[in-house]
Amino acid sequence: MSGLEVISLAPDPTRYAWTFGGVEPVARIRPGTVLRLFTEDCFAGRVRSEIDLVSEVCEFPFLNPQTGPFHIEGAEPGDTVAVHFISIEPARDWAASTTVPLFGALTATHLTALLHDPLPEAVWIWELDRVARTCRFRAHSGTFEVDLPMDPMHGTVGVAPANLEVRSALVPDAFGGNMDTPEMRAGVTCYLGVNVPGALLSLGDGHARQGEGETCGVAVETAMNTVIAVELLKGRACPWPRIESASHIISTGSVRPLEDAFRIAQSDLVHWLNEDYGLDTLDAYQLVTQAVLSPLANVCDTNYTSVAKFPKQYLPKGQAMGGVDSHLREISAQYLKMHG
Amino acid sequence: MSGLEVISLAPDPTRYAWTFGGVEPVARIRPGTVLRLFTEDCFAGRVRSEIDLVSEVCEFPFLNPQTGPFHIEGAEPGDTVAVHFISIEPARDWAASTTVPLFGALTATHLTALLHDPLPEAVWIWELDRVARTCRFRAHSGTFEVDLPMDPMHGTVGVAPANLEVRSALVPDAFGGNMDTPEMRAGVTCYLGVNVPGALLSLGDGHARQGEGETCGVAVETAMNTVIAVELLKGRACPWPRIESASHIISTGSVRPLEDAFRIAQSDLVHWLNEDYGLDTLDAYQLVTQAVLSPLANVCDTNYTSVAKFPKQYLPKGQAMGGVDSHLREISAQYLKMHG
Amino acid sequence: MSGLEVISLAPDPTRYAWTFGGVEPVARIRPGTVLRLFTEDCFAGRVRSEIDLVSEVCEFPFLNPQTGPFHIEGAEPGDTVAVHFISIEPARDWAASTTVPLFGALTATHLTALLHDPLPEAVWIWELDRVARTCRFRAHSGTFEVDLPMDPMHGTVGVAPANLEVRSALVPDAFGGNMDTPEMRAGVTCYLGVNVPGALLSLGDGHARQGEGETCGVAVETAMNTVIAVELLKGRACPWPRIESASHIISTGSVRPLEDAFRIAQSDLVHWLNEDYGLDTLDAYQLVTQAVLSPLANVCDTNYTSVAKFPKQYLPKGQAMGGVDSHLREISAQYLKMHG
Amino acid sequence: MSGLEVISLAPDPTRYAWTFGGVEPVARIRPGTVLRLFTEDCFAGRVRSEIDLVSEVCEFPFLNPQTGPFHIEGAEPGDTVAVHFISIEPARDWAASTTVPLFGALTATHLTALLHDPLPEAVWIWELDRVARTCRFRAHSGTFEVDLPMDPMHGTVGVAPANLEVRSALVPDAFGGNMDTPEMRAGVTCYLGVNVPGALLSLGDGHARQGEGETCGVAVETAMNTVIAVELLKGRACPWPRIESASHIISTGSVRPLEDAFRIAQSDLVHWLNEDYGLDTLDAYQLVTQAVLSPLANVCDTNYTSVAKFPKQYLPKGQAMGGVDSHLREISAQYLKMHG
Repeated sequence: MSGLEVISLAPDPTRYAWTFGGVEPVARIRPGTVLRLFTEDCFAGRVRSEIDLVSEVCEFPFLNPQTGPFHIEGAEPGDTVAVHFISIEPARDWAASTTVPLFGALTATHLTALLHDPLPEAVWIWELDRVARTCRFRAHSGTFEVDLPMDPMHGTVGVAPANLEVRSALVPDAFGGNMDTPEMRAGVTCYLGVNVPGALLSLGDGHARQGEGETCGVAVETAMNTVIAVELLKGRACPWPRIESASHIISTGSVRPLEDAFRIAQSDLVHWLNEDYGLDTLDAYQLVTQAVLSPLANVCDTNYTSVAKFPKQYLPKGQAMGGVDSHLREISAQYLKMHG
Repeated sequence: MSGLEVISLAPDPTRYAWTFGGVEPVARIRPGTVLRLFTEDCFAGRVRSEIDLVSEVCEFPFLNPQTGPFHIEGAEPGDTVAVHFISIEPARDWAASTTVPLFGALTATHLTALLHDPLPEAVWIWELDRVARTCRFRAHSGTFEVDLPMDPMHGTVGVAPANLEVRSALVPDAFGGNMDTPEMRAGVTCYLGVNVPGALLSLGDGHARQGEGETCGVAVETAMNTVIAVELLKGRACPWPRIESASHIISTGSVRPLEDAFRIAQSDLVHWLNEDYGLDTLDAYQLVTQAVLSPLANVCDTNYTSVAKFPKQYLPKGQAMGGVDSHLREISAQYLKMHG
Repeated sequence: MSGLEVISLAPDPTRYAWTFGGVEPVARIRPGTVLRLFTEDCFAGRVRSEIDLVSEVCEFPFLNPQTGPFHIEGAEPGDTVAVHFISIEPARDWAASTTVPLFGALTATHLTALLHDPLPEAVWIWELDRVARTCRFRAHSGTFEVDLPMDPMHGTVGVAPANLEVRSALVPDAFGGNMDTPEMRAGVTCYLGVNVPGALLSLGDGHARQGEGETCGVAVETAMNTVIAVELLKGRACPWPRIESASHIISTGSVRPLEDAFRIAQSDLVHWLNEDYGLDTLDAYQLVTQAVLSPLANVCDTNYTSVAKFPKQYLPKGQAMGGVDSHLREISAQYLKMHG
Repeated sequence: MSGLEVISLAPDPTRYAWTFGGVEPVARIRPGTVLRLFTEDCFAGRVRSEIDLVSEVCEFPFLNPQTGPFHIEGAEPGDTVAVHFISIEPARDWAASTTVPLFGALTATHLTALLHDPLPEAVWIWELDRVARTCRFRAHSGTFEVDLPMDPMHGTVGVAPANLEVRSALVPDAFGGNMDTPEMRAGVTCYLGVNVPGALLSLGDGHARQGEGETCGVAVETAMNTVIAVELLKGRACPWPRIESASHIISTGSVRPLEDAFRIAQSDLVHWLNEDYGLDTLDAYQLVTQAVLSPLANVCDTNYTSVAKFPKQYLPKGQAMGGVDSHLREISAQYLKMHG
């Protein structure tokens, strides 16, 4: 593996992608390539202080810039792209979060259309201590401050959608996209079904941390320096995004209402236990029922995302998605030995 | 505190409660009382082997028997009952789980009414090792077996509902009831708003363990020997059930669709940070967004239940619900010293 | 049929029922009886002018008073009660409608829990012209007035629920209750499955008229003088409320989310075409798809109600629910000849 | 108006559009132009007999072919396109309807993911009598036949979406698209907000008739010869598709869950009464509540569509959308005098 191929990209601000699909690739890569990427925050870097209100400084629809897309050589519909996150590191010592008018889980929105005026608009600047690995919250009202653990993740990772579509980078769906799950952290592998030749992988929306459900709609948003390794599973489909960590296999579903997102993730997990671990479907249904963890990802985006996690230690013998995660961990180890 | 009052009750099978509200109390207790209770499983003990299909051996509506209700002296509408779980121990060395026709998250149901025939009906008998603290799953098809950790909990705990209602013990709602959250384990305190004089507390539906969301609708169901301590908060309301553990404050919401259950739990948590910890509402909205854990409880019952957990270590100074949890932990310690 | 039995009841204000189930019957009646009833409005008559705000003048939970319940002799679980509306006439020359804080389809509510303040509270007094059959709306702001056609209906009609429950009169569910469908007008027969001996029928919540969906949560509410004829179908179940008019057979479903209410009503209609008209289920699914009318009833109550109407002229040969509607129309004709 | 511009287009089968957005215009037209169009059925004409199962003869994603798109000169974001349907006439004497595996309101689907096998797949060929204006249903099982009134409509009409997106022609959303409402019949004007220069209008998915909700997911599908007149409202936005008939103004909302689609349509109607008829918002909320008709459109597509109809006769003085409907009716009359 001396031939580890490493490509770096920090896109010029004019070269971000704002959609999944519909964008020319920034590069063609071979399976096995390591990508060192800079991603800008969801505000395209425009919210820098507490007076930078989203409704004033951001320019719709130029939100949630994606780095990419990358054309993966040999990827065809019916294959699956595996993206291993080697590292995700905040590129700045601060992050921003905000309320956004008519957006979020606890407010009237454009889709939950009510007769209320929007909630007040506000910005919180979070201080990131990259040595102590903390994110500092300061209340606007009063003097309360608290340090939360840094837990960097990507809210958005996806490929071009099926059905000839081009989707906003704000949308999560079967192609991945803006799932906003804290599970998308360094050390995991994300599986995405390929819908178009080359797959067209891109990612962005770094969060220094995020609660489950992303209640107000906006996490601790910051630019990231992220390293991923990309592989390709030929002839293996993946209908909804899956994630594999050292300890869990994880299914996701993104749709409204939220119970349908739950159903997709749990059904996918049942089928996964059948496909890769040989359990009969009803047995898998029973075992999942007793062992699954079901943290929410987002309940604010165009589609809601529900996550279903199964602990590997309770699985029958088998390997997830052909075992590609092990291979990617080797690439990761090799990369980190050279560059870590 | 030498006067610790302890009452034991293992109801005669004819004396279970099948509803919240509408039942005469089995006893009147003073705040501060410790209750040692036996609870039967949700099948009323009728599913004992793999040939005991729910549709054949159970008698609707006599499902989910509750032990109680207890009239708590002095409890009036506007107060809150605090129930501390001192211990929850399986009363048998086996438990049962099943599919139930037209019930569960991944099937057509009476409420998600589709034209499919029901899924197959089946029973799994789980072996409980109360020393090793494990629950053994055996697949029906093939030879796979696995031990999951025992994590005993009560699916159902509640008080009489508001609005003159009587509700089936299968329902979760603002009065508590069949919330089916794994958070209801030994060591936590559950807060329930009082709707009628005496509150009329009851509980049941022991689970040796349960995944989040209770996907197939049925957990690892078993009879329990459970010890609780009961307190009363005068003049403090609690609109939806709350839970306090050593490490978290926890809000719950139970309704359909699931996003509304999420909204209730998250809104309640925001308001709780405001009421007991002095955070401004918008600041609380921001902090919850970044720090909350949002595991699902059930996505199968009459109402779906969503849970919102906030780590105590990141809270401003303050105490939850007047600090009654500390008092209950003292009662628990005293009880355990005497009886543990 | 000279023996037409007619019973009149205008309850004393202390004798209203506020729930379905849990109330002693006001009378025992034989199948075939005609009932002449007075029903008070949903506010229990307390909103009489534009300064009578619901939050100030009404006393929770004493809302939506029901006249009844009536014990129908011989009714047992598994039977169906048929209620034919002979006439529904406003008892006053005015009606009231209001907004209610945290209630309605276009506002945050207790169940769609958001961080907004409630919308403004207001009362509109509607003038009813019982000769011209109109309801006059007067805008609060400006001088606009308009006469809408009077189309009197009952928002609430139901029997005692199953599963040992007692439900608030504000709830619609399988037992009927607060369905709030404009289809419940004079000339139709409503079918309600019996859950307890005697059925325990009651009704209330008269509306001089109502739009479909009851958007703000409150219709043109008024007291009614209503005449119904009641029959009993032995041995025929009715899982969800059905309605038969001269021109349509109508199924209803009441649950959240709204698509599940739609599914219940449409599934029930498909099954009804199978049971009473001999169509194969898939053929019925196809024919319903092309011929059904699907007006909403309410999207504001505890459960949402969806209606599915099939025009009788396109049905195969057969008769709905054993043809009891024809018999009830004869009773109606006989009554109207005597009293009309 | 002697200069009535009429353009005819019957696209070559290779020239259909399968998406909204992302397609080069087939023609540039001036506001005021009349378009005579042929539209193919949603199956791209491939289902021609009862043995032509969708899963076998159709080629995903090449479903629901659209005729267009047309670039409307001068149309810019913030404007509204008005499409008046002069006539919609079936181009064949038969139509097809089907079940589709894992699609429809009363079945498990890819989004309501359950563990059931798909329902049986079937095709019904409907005979269209274009003189008698009827559609003949023949049951598969038994001998039942019935003629339903022909009521031709377009399931799909839309413009390019906002947010840089390209959406499948199977999707309804704010840009219009596959709303599947029977209200889209000859004689009405449809208003669509412009999102991209030229608007890029297209339409298809003719239905000889359809029930409300499109329960099984497929209407009485046929090719159409359709004549429309197209106008442009400069400087007037239209956030969700609206329709104007001779008798009603009609708002639509398309999203999941269905109650949110209802909320969008009803909110839009309230705002419309405010904008074009001068009613205060709360007064409009009240009047809509009592006068609105709320038939469902589809409860099967990617988004569900709810419709809110307000009778013009009860409106304050004013004119919808600047009165452009009157102008379009004149064009229609002129066209029909020449060509009708």
